[in-house]
Amino acid sequence: MSKEILAGIDLGGTNIKIGCFDSGLRLLARDSVPTEAHMSAKVVVDQLGAAVNRLVQGLGKGARLVAAGIGSPGPADYKKGIIFQCANLPTFKDVPLPQMLSERLHCPVAFDNDANVACYGEFVAGAGKDVQDMVFFTLGTGIGCGIVSNGRLIQGATGNAAEVGHMIIFRDGRQCNCGQRGCVEAYASASSTARRAMEAIQAGRPSSLKGLLEEKGQITSKDVYEHLAAGDMLAKQITDETARALAIMCVNILHTTDPARIVFSGGMIAAGQVLLDRIRYYFQQEIWRLKKETVEIVFASLGEDAGIVGAAAMAKEKIGL
Amino acid sequence: MSKEILAGIDLGGTNIKIGCFDSGLRLLARDSVPTEAHMSAKVVVDQLGAAVNRLVQGLGKGARLVAAGIGSPGPADYKKGIIFQCANLPTFKDVPLPQMLSERLHCPVAFDNDANVACYGEFVAGAGKDVQDMVFFTLGTGIGCGIVSNGRLIQGATGNAAEVGHMIIFRDGRQCNCGQRGCVEAYASASSTARRAMEAIQAGRPSSLKGLLEEKGQITSKDVYEHLAAGDMLAKQITDETARALAIMCVNILHTTDPARIVFSGGMIAAGQVLLDRIRYYFQQEIWRLKKETVEIVFASLGEDAGIVGAAAMAKEKIGL
Repeated sequence: MSKEILAGIDLGGTNIKIGCFDSGLRLLARDSVPTEAHMSAKVVVDQLGAAVNRLVQGLGKGARLVAAGIGSPGPADYKKGIIFQCANLPTFKDVPLPQMLSERLHCPVAFDNDANVACYGEFVAGAGKDVQDMVFFTLGTGIGCGIVSNGRLIQGATGNAAEVGHMIIFRDGRQCNCGQRGCVEAYASASSTARRAMEAIQAGRPSSLKGLLEEKGQITSKDVYEHLAAGDMLAKQITDETARALAIMCVNILHTTDPARIVFSGGMIAAGQVLLDRIRYYFQQEIWRLKKETVEIVFASLGEDAGIVGAAAMAKEKIGL
Repeated sequence: MSKEILAGIDLGGTNIKIGCFDSGLRLLARDSVPTEAHMSAKVVVDQLGAAVNRLVQGLGKGARLVAAGIGSPGPADYKKGIIFQCANLPTFKDVPLPQMLSERLHCPVAFDNDANVACYGEFVAGAGKDVQDMVFFTLGTGIGCGIVSNGRLIQGATGNAAEVGHMIIFRDGRQCNCGQRGCVEAYASASSTARRAMEAIQAGRPSSLKGLLEEKGQITSKDVYEHLAAGDMLAKQITDETARALAIMCVNILHTTDPARIVFSGGMIAAGQVLLDRIRYYFQQEIWRLKKETVEIVFASLGEDAGIVGAAAMAKEKIGL
């Protein structure tokens, strides 16, 4: 008997994750391919194709790959299927990755932004599986975002919707890597949280983080949250500013697409309940009084698998399975 | 021969506009009913029903009303079809207007927020008719908004999407009527533009508007733009702040739903090209440098008819005509 297999692929910073799923989106097998700076697009596609085929063959005689999905960081034209550049694969330039992969795997390939794909994974099988309207944020080096409205991802006129970390919320505020001033991302990503702490210490603010900064030359958002737990006052101020910026972002997205749930993901959610509690606190401080809001602010539930699950779900949708 | 007629209704501040359209959304006849403060929901529905029936009868023997749509200000539950309150009809309290109207007109009735309905009008027949992704703003007492993504209005989990005038863009900023601080609406609606000018004059700033304020006791945004044209420096500063707040709102909505076109409407667009030019100027100042943006910022083209056109289009969609 033939068994239809969907492949979900997540092109990440240090490796490419692959999952094989059945049509009910149950994970049947997984693998990963390391990304190395010298790899050309052809090499990546060859190794990826070989790994997917190996996984499918391992699922038994009737297993047959019917579609694949891939999530990738940008900048890219997600509508046309072209990756302009890829931070960890410097040889990538204007690569038609989904088309190359489709030729290699002999099946249709769905393609979208990595944050959109992870959002879709949480929507179909994770923290958003019981709602029709959700917004997803990843807190890492930057702030990734995906938006589901009425059960569908918002992709936009140019495929560049859901870059909500680049909402301007502070007039004449901090310089963001994107070129704008006052973006949420310039305050509240994991990297920006650590950077604001380092700047404050260098400006002479007292903190238990000072010794760590002198010893290591830099600190991370994890360090900041650890020193918050140990009672450091600077860490309290920095993390409160992070939570307030994220809360204003939640207010603004509530007034835009009116989600039933806002889901936070990414490395910084390791900070745990204190992060979630402070976002919820500032949300209540900042939100209007016209009516009571019922939006839930929660953490993601799929962890690092959100990308492969979402990519497989997009593959499934692409072929109408 | 039978001719299918769609009615589009726009519940406004001083009157209720009614249009009768054919299935191609061509306007065949129009009328309006004045709204008076003493009118109960039953009286409004009776007068509205009579006016619609009169219009349809006037279209000849074969004309037959097949559906109606109505746009109304909130607060309301647009999903359940209940108007909680209505500023110009103080007796309205928890009124199931679309249901009452459906019983009176013997046809299905579509119902949504007045700004969403006007947005949909511009989308199907006005400034957005050749795009699939647009955002619409009305600049009046407040800032109304509608969002079309991939050809469909975004309505949200509770039917309260597209309140983008209540995005917070200025930390600890001006108090908004909604209870938040720093909303776009608190700076850049027609009313807020006039209010900021009055506050500046009362604080002693020199301006050619001072005499007018003393004479009339208040000034309007129209006065401010007239004095801008005559070279008043305070009017220049106030209207620049309005344009910059609107430009940041455009940046933020671009990063959210990625529209191909942003359409401004409402009383304040009478200010003309100077308003549009300054919004476009500040948009270019504020937008990121990661990639070139092609979104167009334009004025609406249907004027006051956007509401009845949009309501008729929603009626058409409701019955799958």
